[in-house]
Amino acid sequence: MSVSGAPPIAHGGDLDAARTLFPDAPAPWIDLSTGINPVPYPCPPLEASAFRRLPSPADLAALKAAAATAYGVADPAGIVAAPGTQILIETLPRLVARARVAVVGPTYAEHAAAWARAGHAVVPVTDLDAAADVVVVVNPNNPDGRSWDAATLLACAALQNARGGLLVVDEAFADLEAVESLAPRLRPGLVVLRSFGKTYGLAGLRLGFALAEPDLAARLAEALGPWAVSGPALAIGGAALADTAWREAATVARGADADRLDRMIARAGGTVVGGTRLFRTADFPDGPGLFGRLGAAGIYVRRFEAAPSRLRFGLPADRTEWCRLSRVLK
Amino acid sequence: MSVSGAPPIAHGGDLDAARTLFPDAPAPWIDLSTGINPVPYPCPPLEASAFRRLPSPADLAALKAAAATAYGVADPAGIVAAPGTQILIETLPRLVARARVAVVGPTYAEHAAAWARAGHAVVPVTDLDAAADVVVVVNPNNPDGRSWDAATLLACAALQNARGGLLVVDEAFADLEAVESLAPRLRPGLVVLRSFGKTYGLAGLRLGFALAEPDLAARLAEALGPWAVSGPALAIGGAALADTAWREAATVARGADADRLDRMIARAGGTVVGGTRLFRTADFPDGPGLFGRLGAAGIYVRRFEAAPSRLRFGLPADRTEWCRLSRVLK
Repeated sequence: MSVSGAPPIAHGGDLDAARTLFPDAPAPWIDLSTGINPVPYPCPPLEASAFRRLPSPADLAALKAAAATAYGVADPAGIVAAPGTQILIETLPRLVARARVAVVGPTYAEHAAAWARAGHAVVPVTDLDAAADVVVVVNPNNPDGRSWDAATLLACAALQNARGGLLVVDEAFADLEAVESLAPRLRPGLVVLRSFGKTYGLAGLRLGFALAEPDLAARLAEALGPWAVSGPALAIGGAALADTAWREAATVARGADADRLDRMIARAGGTVVGGTRLFRTADFPDGPGLFGRLGAAGIYVRRFEAAPSRLRFGLPADRTEWCRLSRVLK
Repeated sequence: MSVSGAPPIAHGGDLDAARTLFPDAPAPWIDLSTGINPVPYPCPPLEASAFRRLPSPADLAALKAAAATAYGVADPAGIVAAPGTQILIETLPRLVARARVAVVGPTYAEHAAAWARAGHAVVPVTDLDAAADVVVVVNPNNPDGRSWDAATLLACAALQNARGGLLVVDEAFADLEAVESLAPRLRPGLVVLRSFGKTYGLAGLRLGFALAEPDLAARLAEALGPWAVSGPALAIGGAALADTAWREAATVARGADADRLDRMIARAGGTVVGGTRLFRTADFPDGPGLFGRLGAAGIYVRRFEAAPSRLRFGLPADRTEWCRLSRVLK
């Protein structure tokens, strides 16, 4: 797939890869390889017009208003809606002049890859204090849940802006967490990314947001063009983002799930290194062995080439999945 | 919306604009301002997983295989699936080195705008024989239906390729037409765009394709990132593109609609200048007056700032809409 010579990045969520690795595993597969909420938002029935009509400027304005309220953004002009956050991760580097880019990691691999593909010089760093034109940080971080407070991030944003650069804060997993979002504190030199599909369990819908000062937001929106977001995503996204009660209930329920998963991991000899309410990351005495036993039982989790003892677990969806996982993690 | 200082481009399909122009028009509005098939493909029921799961590489491969068969592309590696063609129109200019770009027109305004936004020098031209690095042509053209044969276009593609340039052929309206598609004849220096939503009456779904030699196709796909196309678009798109019988029936039915519309236009004193089976473009002795009478009757058509006598009509959806249109076009 890659023409830049880089190997393709392995991602969670590809059960076909799991089936190839474990052809004899019992069906159905349990996909714990992602951080997608396994209890999705109950979608309202979609009108046929959501599929048929070209989305109108008013449809988009309504979604942006709902996102502004949900994320605490004062001015909807700072909101860019996209068909998933990934396309924003790809697009932003193409709008920035050739730069030195520091990606705080280890983290979600597509950030470094996208900046490199767009011709920037990417350096992996371990914290915010990097001498770079662009600093990218995922808060809370995937896969280890590491987080930064708003004051630290804002100081970094100020520094980046002073040198004509950018701080990119990917808040993909912030919705259900206690981290301080920078969404209400947008300013020049700061871009915040928010993901819809993970929190709402609707990753196939493709919806994500960039939040930035209006000038940069307008450039990002222009690069996507009109009608980038589908009718179904506009309708479902608007309803879900306005549903504060559902989000609060999901925070509690997924928090309980995460605690339960931590207990199971500990029972299996694992040490939880961190995570969010949608995934838990742990080190195991024999990570590859456990990955194999889980796979043989039809349970797909995320492993990491650079850290073989480490596995990341998404949340089981229901009692059957919890039981099957429990039988391996013992 | 625009930060480049250019005024926003007026598009069809925005009924809110129509409501503002004609606040006293009877509801419901009839939207004839687009070239979207008013009789949509009968969508198969969607599985919940289409909304929930991250689309897998196998899902995307299945869609590309269906598109390859439908469009006559030998190698699916030449196919890029996107959330609508518009985002491809925006993305392609950002992958091309600073160029002189000739857009054959008058035509769909977003082509020239997207190349200009990406920093290229855009010149409007009236035919293919332009001395430019990139030539863009819409075949058949929107709004006048003008078309070019394959031999002429391939000669242009060869010339463009020899000078290290590109020919971009936007076949947005080719599906139901007799024009010779270049999709089966991809080669270096040629990019073909195909639109899904217009033909299948599902513009809200957001699905479109670029067809190119595999190297350029890979660069385009990389710029969109993984998961650019939603689960619903993958499922519905795959089914619809494989349904040859539906497409053939739509060609006949919309052809009859177009003929009927031509007769109405003639009866109203209009001269049809061209179009496709999904829209008809005509000149009228008093274009602005007719636009106003249609609007007052709750019928929204497309007008053109540079050609006030000209109006473009999409197809009415049903008997009620035909009757209401007929009452004004008499």
